[in-house]
Amino acid sequence: MKKLINHPEDVVRESLEGFSLAYADLVKVHFDPTFVYRADAPVSGKVALISGGGSGHEPMHTGYVGRGMLSAACPGAIFTSPTPDQMLEAARTVDGGQGVLFIVKNYSGDVMNFSMAADLARSEGLRALNILIDDDVAVKNSLYTQGRRGVGATVLAEKICGAAAERGYDLPRLADLCRRVNLNARSMGVALTSCTVPAVGHPTFDLAEDQIELGIGIHGEPGQRRAQLKPADEIAEFLTLSIIEDGPYQRTVSEWNEEKEEWQDLALESPPLKYGDSVLAFVNSMGGTPAIELPILYRKLAQVCEKKGLRIARTLMGPYITSLEMAGCSITLLKLDEELASLWDDPVKTPGLRWGI
Amino acid sequence: MKKLINHPEDVVRESLEGFSLAYADLVKVHFDPTFVYRADAPVSGKVALISGGGSGHEPMHTGYVGRGMLSAACPGAIFTSPTPDQMLEAARTVDGGQGVLFIVKNYSGDVMNFSMAADLARSEGLRALNILIDDDVAVKNSLYTQGRRGVGATVLAEKICGAAAERGYDLPRLADLCRRVNLNARSMGVALTSCTVPAVGHPTFDLAEDQIELGIGIHGEPGQRRAQLKPADEIAEFLTLSIIEDGPYQRTVSEWNEEKEEWQDLALESPPLKYGDSVLAFVNSMGGTPAIELPILYRKLAQVCEKKGLRIARTLMGPYITSLEMAGCSITLLKLDEELASLWDDPVKTPGLRWGI
Repeated sequence: MKKLINHPEDVVRESLEGFSLAYADLVKVHFDPTFVYRADAPVSGKVALISGGGSGHEPMHTGYVGRGMLSAACPGAIFTSPTPDQMLEAARTVDGGQGVLFIVKNYSGDVMNFSMAADLARSEGLRALNILIDDDVAVKNSLYTQGRRGVGATVLAEKICGAAAERGYDLPRLADLCRRVNLNARSMGVALTSCTVPAVGHPTFDLAEDQIELGIGIHGEPGQRRAQLKPADEIAEFLTLSIIEDGPYQRTVSEWNEEKEEWQDLALESPPLKYGDSVLAFVNSMGGTPAIELPILYRKLAQVCEKKGLRIARTLMGPYITSLEMAGCSITLLKLDEELASLWDDPVKTPGLRWGI
Repeated sequence: MKKLINHPEDVVRESLEGFSLAYADLVKVHFDPTFVYRADAPVSGKVALISGGGSGHEPMHTGYVGRGMLSAACPGAIFTSPTPDQMLEAARTVDGGQGVLFIVKNYSGDVMNFSMAADLARSEGLRALNILIDDDVAVKNSLYTQGRRGVGATVLAEKICGAAAERGYDLPRLADLCRRVNLNARSMGVALTSCTVPAVGHPTFDLAEDQIELGIGIHGEPGQRRAQLKPADEIAEFLTLSIIEDGPYQRTVSEWNEEKEEWQDLALESPPLKYGDSVLAFVNSMGGTPAIELPILYRKLAQVCEKKGLRIARTLMGPYITSLEMAGCSITLLKLDEELASLWDDPVKTPGLRWGI
């Protein structure tokens, strides 16, 4: 295993220490329990936005803490869910009196722990709601997931809801918005190589020199199938069409009902994309893909979108939700409306995403 | 060779096509001869800043075209110098009547071709000056270089001079500034793995599973020596100390003298860093390094700087000058003064670096 680390068990802590030194003007890090939070937290009169998950996907989530995006992020060990005490202490720290929205990627550990954290927060008198992100169209269930996995849409939800929180959206309105981003987003990824989790010391999976994994998960979970390595155009077209041609997707999620003061099952449906829609196109590197390759994928994505009558109104391209050094990419399309596009354009100042400030 | 490409010979062109689609609001691409330029070029009354070099180092240089940074960038084939006709046509396109400054990394092909381009531009009545970047302390001469190689300082020079050009610095003042950035910057890198040039199809060099190359060049040129893989702290300390303890560095560069209208040899010296200096600390990923590892290096860098009496006043961390998918990093320290720090903070809006706009 070749990595720029010291001891595998110190990777997350040392990385956070360096991170807090490098971005001391933007964020602070609290250890034991561990979370990253805005240097100016709590911001009074604003809903606090908290996310988190296993480390190894940087800049997500810690890199998205700052004005216009997250109030706090709770990093777990690499590819391992953070614990409720991290989320609870983060909530206590960043709550500005308007409550906390937890943005939760759909992995069983994350869902369970964020639900527990929300219950604990409420038992202390904090308002707290959880919204699930489950945008990966590759597989129905997965290694760590019931239902679809949460991937690229998480970055977009954090940006858009972060902007809305700055604008003063209250907690229920912010939860609605976050749900709307998720229901209008679809993603799919591909891996050319595995990554190596430092504590494991060897690649998560083996892929032959001429093989790729279509529909890969961001922790190396199996996707739809293995295939022969193909030209980038074929891969980009396959991913884009898988997203565009994905039908309506129904699922039942568990959300806290503030009026009834109980968890309730909510039936939700993602409407498919249709001719004439405006979209945000997000081409993501899994970490190890050379930057020169992403625009090659974007080029084909744009051609397919044009053919299918989708107008690309906004673009994000780069390594924004990664799997350590995995070579590969994912594509996310988010159907935009005026409100989402406007919130996307709002200023943001975080280590990982910044403009306008 | 596992890459998200179509045919190796189409990589640069297709990547530029996708790039221009993704960032149509910021840049345009001209083909044959090939260069990327600001969508609003020419900007009248402003010196035009042009750089370029072999492709494969993205986001450098094409990703740094935009307001507050480059006016144009000339990409060559991967790891291959662009040609004078690219630079000349770029200069014609972006000149706003105040002349053109070429920022040139010290590689023999780049130096020769940019010099020729400047001569051609002047023969057409354009004002043109070239400033050389040669900040790599690892080796004196190298595979493609007489004298030190130009690496991380290039990104910093492009940002700082780009800001100064926006502020209205005239051509001689901008050339002085660029020279000053270079003379006050030092860099060194390390590789854990090689990258693979698409047209070659196999790794540029072999490194055993337990070996690293200290002082690597950004094209895979040999560095100082091979060493055993070490903990990140030892590597970061070695690179940082190599930079801090590098003595005064003299060289003679060839620059155009506008008054005498001839190329003249200029003796230059880089003063070493000293106790009490303020620096910009730049931790760069070579492309394939997981984002979680960079702050581990930054952490040790910050410790060493503190011990040596250097105050880190500004920070840049991420994949800003890469070598395709090479795993590794480089560190650059730029001694700051008030003017440089203030120019660094100015707004910038490019695909690869953006804040304040």
